[in-house]
Amino acid sequence: MDKIEHIGIAVRDLAASNKLFEKIFGMPHYKIEEVASEGVRTSFFEVGPNKIELLEATKDDSPIAKFIEKKGEGIHHIAFAVTDIRKEMDRLRAQGFRILNEEPKKGADNKWVAFLHPKDGNGVLIELCQEIPVRENT
Amino acid sequence: MDKIEHIGIAVRDLAASNKLFEKIFGMPHYKIEEVASEGVRTSFFEVGPNKIELLEATKDDSPIAKFIEKKGEGIHHIAFAVTDIRKEMDRLRAQGFRILNEEPKKGADNKWVAFLHPKDGNGVLIELCQEIPVRENT
Repeated sequence: MDKIEHIGIAVRDLAASNKLFEKIFGMPHYKIEEVASEGVRTSFFEVGPNKIELLEATKDDSPIAKFIEKKGEGIHHIAFAVTDIRKEMDRLRAQGFRILNEEPKKGADNKWVAFLHPKDGNGVLIELCQEIPVRENT
Repeated sequence: MDKIEHIGIAVRDLAASNKLFEKIFGMPHYKIEEVASEGVRTSFFEVGPNKIELLEATKDDSPIAKFIEKKGEGIHHIAFAVTDIRKEMDRLRAQGFRILNEEPKKGADNKWVAFLHPKDGNGVLIELCQEIPVRENT
């Protein structure tokens, strides 16, 4: 794994949280993106080589809505950048880890993503993500 | 803020979790350090420019023991590297944020640290940390 790509934080009100994190980082978010398939609207902040992703539910039955209902606002997942997501998924499966999606799926911010089962990660939801190469995205 | 310095993860059994994260990252932790004043034993993993810090309570009344009792194992805090911790503390105080410690205190891994009140950070416990310069540490 190459670095922490981003940390995902579940929030109730994206507009209010954008203002809050703008104060914390001293600079505004650089984009807003909706991932309809996940029922989520996201915003991204850059902090050096890393990012913070704020996540607001757009549907009552989305994973983020359920997370907030159960645990309140807060850190939802850690995403690690990987160079070859299929290779990492195979390596982790061979070590006994359960991966929530069989195949990499398209996430926000032009990424292939896969999630490990949080019960296999000390209660931490771990995402693997790989930049989608231009040739696969056109 | 310069980057995510580390993510702190509260664990019940540091030895078991070290084995688990060694499998996830494909490499072992690079150090173990006890911070007696915080009632915590920590281990560190390197992931490119970032670190993961596992935190095990050494006392029943330590912040990590209380966190696990209330929320279970999982992500405890995000630490951002800053160049001048006093300046950042002043900047955030001026924006209305509450900082849990009046003065920077010594944390693990040769750092000056300060924590923002999690209620001011969307439920996220945010740590600022600055490498202790050699001249202040001898």
